[in-house]
Amino acid sequence: MGLNITEKIISAHLVDGKMEPGTEIGLRIDQTLTQDATGTMAYLQFEAMGIEKVQTELSVSYVDHNTLQMGFRNPDDHQYLRTVAAKHGVVFSPAGTGICHQLHLENFAKPGKTLIGSDSHTPTAGGLGSLAMGAGGLSVALAMAGQPYSIPMPKVVKVELSGKLTGWATSKDIILHLLGELTVKGGVGIVFEFGGEGVKTLSVPERAVITNMGAELGATTSIFPSDENTRDFLKAMDRVEDYSELVADTDATYADTIKIDLSKLEPLVAQPHMPDRVVTVKSLAGLKVNQSAIGSCTNSSYSDLKTTALILKDQQLPQGVDLMISPGSKQVLKMLASEGFIAPLLDSGARLLECTCGPCIGMGGSPTSAGVSVRTFNRNFEGRSGTQDAKVYLASPQTAAKLALAGEFTDPASWGTPIEKIDFPAEVPSIRHLFIYPPENGAEVELVRGPNIVPLESFSALPDEISSEILLKVGDDITTDHILPAGAQITALRSNIPAISEYIFSRVDENFVSRMKNSESGIILGGENYGQGSSREHAALGPRHLGVVAVIVKSMARIHRANLVNFGILPLVLSQKSDYDRLSEGSHLTLKTTEITPGGETVATTADGLQIKVKNDLSEKELAIIIAGGLLNYVGKQL
Amino acid sequence: MGLNITEKIISAHLVDGKMEPGTEIGLRIDQTLTQDATGTMAYLQFEAMGIEKVQTELSVSYVDHNTLQMGFRNPDDHQYLRTVAAKHGVVFSPAGTGICHQLHLENFAKPGKTLIGSDSHTPTAGGLGSLAMGAGGLSVALAMAGQPYSIPMPKVVKVELSGKLTGWATSKDIILHLLGELTVKGGVGIVFEFGGEGVKTLSVPERAVITNMGAELGATTSIFPSDENTRDFLKAMDRVEDYSELVADTDATYADTIKIDLSKLEPLVAQPHMPDRVVTVKSLAGLKVNQSAIGSCTNSSYSDLKTTALILKDQQLPQGVDLMISPGSKQVLKMLASEGFIAPLLDSGARLLECTCGPCIGMGGSPTSAGVSVRTFNRNFEGRSGTQDAKVYLASPQTAAKLALAGEFTDPASWGTPIEKIDFPAEVPSIRHLFIYPPENGAEVELVRGPNIVPLESFSALPDEISSEILLKVGDDITTDHILPAGAQITALRSNIPAISEYIFSRVDENFVSRMKNSESGIILGGENYGQGSSREHAALGPRHLGVVAVIVKSMARIHRANLVNFGILPLVLSQKSDYDRLSEGSHLTLKTTEITPGGETVATTADGLQIKVKNDLSEKELAIIIAGGLLNYVGKQL
Repeated sequence: MGLNITEKIISAHLVDGKMEPGTEIGLRIDQTLTQDATGTMAYLQFEAMGIEKVQTELSVSYVDHNTLQMGFRNPDDHQYLRTVAAKHGVVFSPAGTGICHQLHLENFAKPGKTLIGSDSHTPTAGGLGSLAMGAGGLSVALAMAGQPYSIPMPKVVKVELSGKLTGWATSKDIILHLLGELTVKGGVGIVFEFGGEGVKTLSVPERAVITNMGAELGATTSIFPSDENTRDFLKAMDRVEDYSELVADTDATYADTIKIDLSKLEPLVAQPHMPDRVVTVKSLAGLKVNQSAIGSCTNSSYSDLKTTALILKDQQLPQGVDLMISPGSKQVLKMLASEGFIAPLLDSGARLLECTCGPCIGMGGSPTSAGVSVRTFNRNFEGRSGTQDAKVYLASPQTAAKLALAGEFTDPASWGTPIEKIDFPAEVPSIRHLFIYPPENGAEVELVRGPNIVPLESFSALPDEISSEILLKVGDDITTDHILPAGAQITALRSNIPAISEYIFSRVDENFVSRMKNSESGIILGGENYGQGSSREHAALGPRHLGVVAVIVKSMARIHRANLVNFGILPLVLSQKSDYDRLSEGSHLTLKTTEITPGGETVATTADGLQIKVKNDLSEKELAIIIAGGLLNYVGKQL
Repeated sequence: MGLNITEKIISAHLVDGKMEPGTEIGLRIDQTLTQDATGTMAYLQFEAMGIEKVQTELSVSYVDHNTLQMGFRNPDDHQYLRTVAAKHGVVFSPAGTGICHQLHLENFAKPGKTLIGSDSHTPTAGGLGSLAMGAGGLSVALAMAGQPYSIPMPKVVKVELSGKLTGWATSKDIILHLLGELTVKGGVGIVFEFGGEGVKTLSVPERAVITNMGAELGATTSIFPSDENTRDFLKAMDRVEDYSELVADTDATYADTIKIDLSKLEPLVAQPHMPDRVVTVKSLAGLKVNQSAIGSCTNSSYSDLKTTALILKDQQLPQGVDLMISPGSKQVLKMLASEGFIAPLLDSGARLLECTCGPCIGMGGSPTSAGVSVRTFNRNFEGRSGTQDAKVYLASPQTAAKLALAGEFTDPASWGTPIEKIDFPAEVPSIRHLFIYPPENGAEVELVRGPNIVPLESFSALPDEISSEILLKVGDDITTDHILPAGAQITALRSNIPAISEYIFSRVDENFVSRMKNSESGIILGGENYGQGSSREHAALGPRHLGVVAVIVKSMARIHRANLVNFGILPLVLSQKSDYDRLSEGSHLTLKTTEITPGGETVATTADGLQIKVKNDLSEKELAIIIAGGLLNYVGKQL
């Protein structure tokens, strides 16, 4: 039986498991990438493993998120990332060089390779046939250490494109169309594999727009074949040697097929506050626009920005309309400059920002109160722009530029002759000399850690007996936001576990941290659905730092449970939910950990001699990880 | 007797007083400028005067400070500034167009005109013979309303330049030399007037570097003659019609003369943390450099940035050296682009930021912890960069670029052939279409105020009798930081008196605000030197908003006393300092305000019948201002 593209790459990288959808597989990872906001913790974790050099073919550390530098924490992070990269064999891309996914596409991504990145838009590289997935920082650290990356074997769904885009429709409208059809939950457990005759009409940057924003479908990833267009792109990037053909076998099978006739698409927008609230641009005609923003890892390529410049040339923005442009890379900006497009952009009244993520992640560029902002980005969640009541619409650069010039939504039928599709010139100026390549031997490199960057402490193994008080009793539906609040002030401490731990449960009980500090160790007692919400690792790392040895609950959310395991905290479930009421803050429990078996039941005894039965659903490996004191210790033993 | 340049301009604008140094004079103001950080309050004050249209020849509102837009407050401020400008006849310069002083020099400043601006570096325009002074927001608002600007008649000191700059020395080194000689207090009450043969060797942008940073001498302002070089500059800016010759009479006299032989100057730097800690660049050879930043209202002209580009061309920054470039205006950036300098800048590894104040005011670009940063700016106060322990050195663009490339301080003797002086091309590209010019009739313009922009309330007149409790008793040396703390969170509320008033005395007594809210009015009792420190108006506006009617102290700082008068709070001094001990928080005082006479003594009576004598040193006009309920009411009556 023939294989599809996804299966071809997976089978070539399969270390554990079988290609049966839903079952766990382990993949050898060829490339990793990190960005600075998630990268510091990933490298601190890598450092904690004690490995000299990354084991991947290529690992790159990009700085593109926290580049404004309002204080010492950002530049100190950059400095740490630069030195830790040099020490351990990682390529470093300094602040301002460009956005990680755009740079990776231009310079490093390869057809047929596996890539994981500590950023959810890593699937961008799927635009040239790489199996590229977003992952947590610890997963990336483990991949750098040469460990396989575990995922459930995805279902592969084919998206068959026919026809050709016409008028003002763009590849952004293809993915917006899909989002409208499938919703933001429509891709869970799925790889979307693009095929059909329509694929040939799309350049690699156009394909990358689609795979980038495929993340909003909740997909594992999205991928295009590697074909002549891929070869042309890699040749323009002066790395044709990285090309290899990669197409599905003619008898490949798919779990499902979705068909899209490109010739039927028209300009679309996603309305506030979700990327799947998709309608046509024309249906909103008359709605006033206060701001447009062009850029982000979705739409900041040379063709995106040259198209924008051609639309803005000899035009001027209406009074009070703010248009911000963030090129995806210095390569893109150099190409615009060499073709004389800087002056037309500036003369239109547009604001040229640095080559970074910028407004897309709320790093500046916030709209006015209740303002309407049309953005070429991938997410329009409420408040993400930095203005809580702003109304953010997602659209193509063409749409964003046209609506900014009009100062309102208009019918694309009134936009005149569409800008012709921009192809790459045969040769493009390189910026590869700006990357900092690691020395052959990094042993001599001195790590520079600012005061906010604190090495991961080494956690001790699980003691044979737990003898601790319940230091916090909470109710049902505790989220990771309860455990560790978000917000700029606290997020800036993400490289500093001791400092960020001061905020653990601060919104729930402001004395919890001091109680933990006055005890050797402690237990948390929770209700139903404990740990739901975001996947932040710090909600397990912080409690572990404070000395939490076990969490005993009525039930627990899946990802937080995995994080507890990773950092060596026992996730236990009350066998009798009614025991929840027999325990209180201050109850003392003893429990022989040597008696715990995978999936078994154990007895914890209170000071009064009360017997509380607790069970676990740990696998043998998970239990071994906890006994070792967490995944880093466990892996350290293996290495 | 002949006149110097300063006297010529002052005599042509004198409305009140005589040109006797130290005595109060009133000047007619031709032009005003504001920037966004101080501008919102200036326009709220202007609005409170109820005047339809500004009475100046030209008023311009620039947005260049708070342009990062981390939330709704910045863009809402911009929106308010744009609409209030249109309504009242003010030219508006949107965010990203450039830095106020650079733009004003290029587009609006004129020889022989008076200019006040709500920014301390307004003297930049002195580079082309304008008498240009920094002032408080209320002074600028009053000037826009057609009121004269009052200052003590300055002493005029001549700075006689001979010879010509050689080697790597620049005009920045002239002002650094002066700062080293005179210190940051050396210019108080003085206008520095530049003359001598050396003046002819300096272009207008070079002169503007000197007058800009003359602010660091504490001077009233600095000024150059308007001569052929001025004419050339204005011609290049396509406004030769704004040229008029302005030179000192041959028999003009000066309070003092300082001589500088330009040929003897060499590259200098101001060391941390004061602009007058000046030494030679070579004396620091070997000191490691982590960052350079080129830009700011001091050094962001076309010649500054082209020189920078020529130094960086075909060179690359060492690993870990961060170089940020903020062009002074879109005109400058367009000129760089048209001459092909964008690629060389990017290829060197430099970061191209928006055309704004940026890192100079700590709006991003903070150095690493304890980092050494060489900046072309005008101030290096501790912590101003955003990194408390950073070490900021002030230097020319040549020096900043060379040291960045070297990664350390080096002797300029090793820098090779100096870059030839860059002159303006005969014609430069205009960006004047980007300014928003007000309509002839602004009555129809709708003001847009975000939720953080609150119109100034109208304060009531002083009641005939004060009958209030002392709601706060404080000790000696209370600063305006005690009255109203600084910091980003509180500063963001400067357009919102009710919100910012919540922080009045918050560091001294957290219950003060609630006590004020529970009372009709209140009195503050203070010790010696009450209100010292910064000149912030909000330290008077906030208490007035809360209902403070009188401040009774042992002694009071000059500027805060003036602010109390301006906002209608009685500044009273205990006739017997020992009475301070007889009064306490909660003491009730009654005082007939109708009995107050200028410079006289009045009796306040406590509930126990204790008679407390208080005196004032108010002029007749000042008393009238307080009785009217503050300067805005007083002026309103006059208009």
